Amino acid sequence: MKILLTNDDGIYSPGILALKQVMKSFGSVTVVAPDVQKSGVGHAITFSHPLRVREVYLDSEFIGYGIDGSPADCVKLGVREIMKEKPELLIAGINIGANVGINVLYSGTVAAAIEGAILGIPSVAFSLEVSESPSDIQGAAAIAKDMVGRIVKKKLPKGTLLNINIPLISKDKIKGVKIAKQYSGDFDECFDKRTDPRGGVYYWLAGTGWPEEGVVGTDMHALKEGYISITPLRYDLTDKDYLREIETWEWDK
Amino acid sequence: MKILLTNDDGIYSPGILALKQVMKSFGSVTVVAPDVQKSGVGHAITFSHPLRVREVYLDSEFIGYGIDGSPADCVKLGVREIMKEKPELLIAGINIGANVGINVLYSGTVAAAIEGAILGIPSVAFSLEVSESPSDIQGAAAIAKDMVGRIVKKKLPKGTLLNINIPLISKDKIKGVKIAKQYSGDFDECFDKRTDPRGGVYYWLAGTGWPEEGVVGTDMHALKEGYISITPLRYDLTDKDYLREIETWEWDK
Repeated sequence: MKILLTNDDGIYSPGILALKQVMKSFGSVTVVAPDVQKSGVGHAITFSHPLRVREVYLDSEFIGYGIDGSPADCVKLGVREIMKEKPELLIAGINIGANVGINVLYSGTVAAAIEGAILGIPSVAFSLEVSESPSDIQGAAAIAKDMVGRIVKKKLPKGTLLNINIPLISKDKIKGVKIAKQYSGDFDECFDKRTDPRGGVYYWLAGTGWPEEGVVGTDMHALKEGYISITPLRYDLTDKDYLREIETWEWDK
Repeated sequence: MKILLTNDDGIYSPGILALKQVMKSFGSVTVVAPDVQKSGVGHAITFSHPLRVREVYLDSEFIGYGIDGSPADCVKLGVREIMKEKPELLIAGINIGANVGINVLYSGTVAAAIEGAILGIPSVAFSLEVSESPSDIQGAAAIAKDMVGRIVKKKLPKGTLLNINIPLISKDKIKGVKIAKQYSGDFDECFDKRTDPRGGVYYWLAGTGWPEEGVVGTDMHALKEGYISITPLRYDLTDKDYLREIETWEWDK
């Protein structure tokens, strides 16, 4: 099986390196990832400047291809130019930080999996609640391996993607798996207004904490309760219920 | 009525300037937009560097606030810091270039309207098939004014957004309005591989043309046929049908 790995934390992220190690057991793994941190770039793509591809080594070992673009760029360029054919599976992650609720929209890691689905590749995004600890990341990689083993047996249909979040507790304390909806409420956000040494005003996006009370049945709630959350996503954003309602409005008269 | 205007083409774009003129008839208009072109940035947000706000003038006339960030940043900062309250309506556009099919995912203009919906503001994105002609843009602005007049009478529910695309034909030749789904097929895309004067290889994303045959009932097809397309969008990406299927898989054993 040919597998494409990418992420938004960049090609040197311990999350993607741990994932590469465990994914080798499923087949041939190609890593194509941003050459620097690209968290929060959403589904950005690059068309007003060209992209470069760089072979990346760590301790003399070839890791993969670093791209000076977004995660979605990495998928497009990885499939069309580097692999030259569609992989059978695309894995994005392991993201350092959960991608639940509206973070799904901001995440470059999830966008990479969406881009894979657009290209007709079964795609999975993995995220771990924030931790830089090597043992936490290794633990998450072991869980990702187990999940991928189950997913490939079931043959994920083309064009489908799964968004999987792993809680930051030891494997034996994880309560299990919850199939969950994306939480769609607003986050508790504000801006921190500051003044620079020259008197200029600037703003930091701050307080992006999750709401205290999660909604039962959502990705956020599952994670808070100590479950691995799995959310199937689609990229046709059409609101089909509301479509039927506005069809009854008079638009032409 | 308090109205927030934004876009992804930047605060000097003729699309947003024409929209500002026509939206004045509905109430008090505040423009908060990227200070430079930000097409294709999707739902990117900025949290690893701070944002600046600049008052922008054109021919000594105050236009609005320019932000060195993404369209979604403009909405967050516009609502939380510049307007200090939720506007009753958010309009994004007029985008120079259609936002149909998977372009909906890449568009900063549509992402701005999604961000508005997340914040609980009735939001509308307007896009015009590519044209830099002032008369085309004025024509599209007149259509946008007519559409907004209909939408505010119906009281768009909080958290809903409409994605409206206007074809590049004269107003009297437009066949009418079609309520349409987002086209969800892949685009005809490739990379143009080139060599720089120093021998370095670089890649341009190219050939992002739409498929020749549109699918009836989609935004792309409606636009090709000479209709204004209106697509209601949601930002909960959960695939509810597939969710029920994967609930039957054995995940825990």
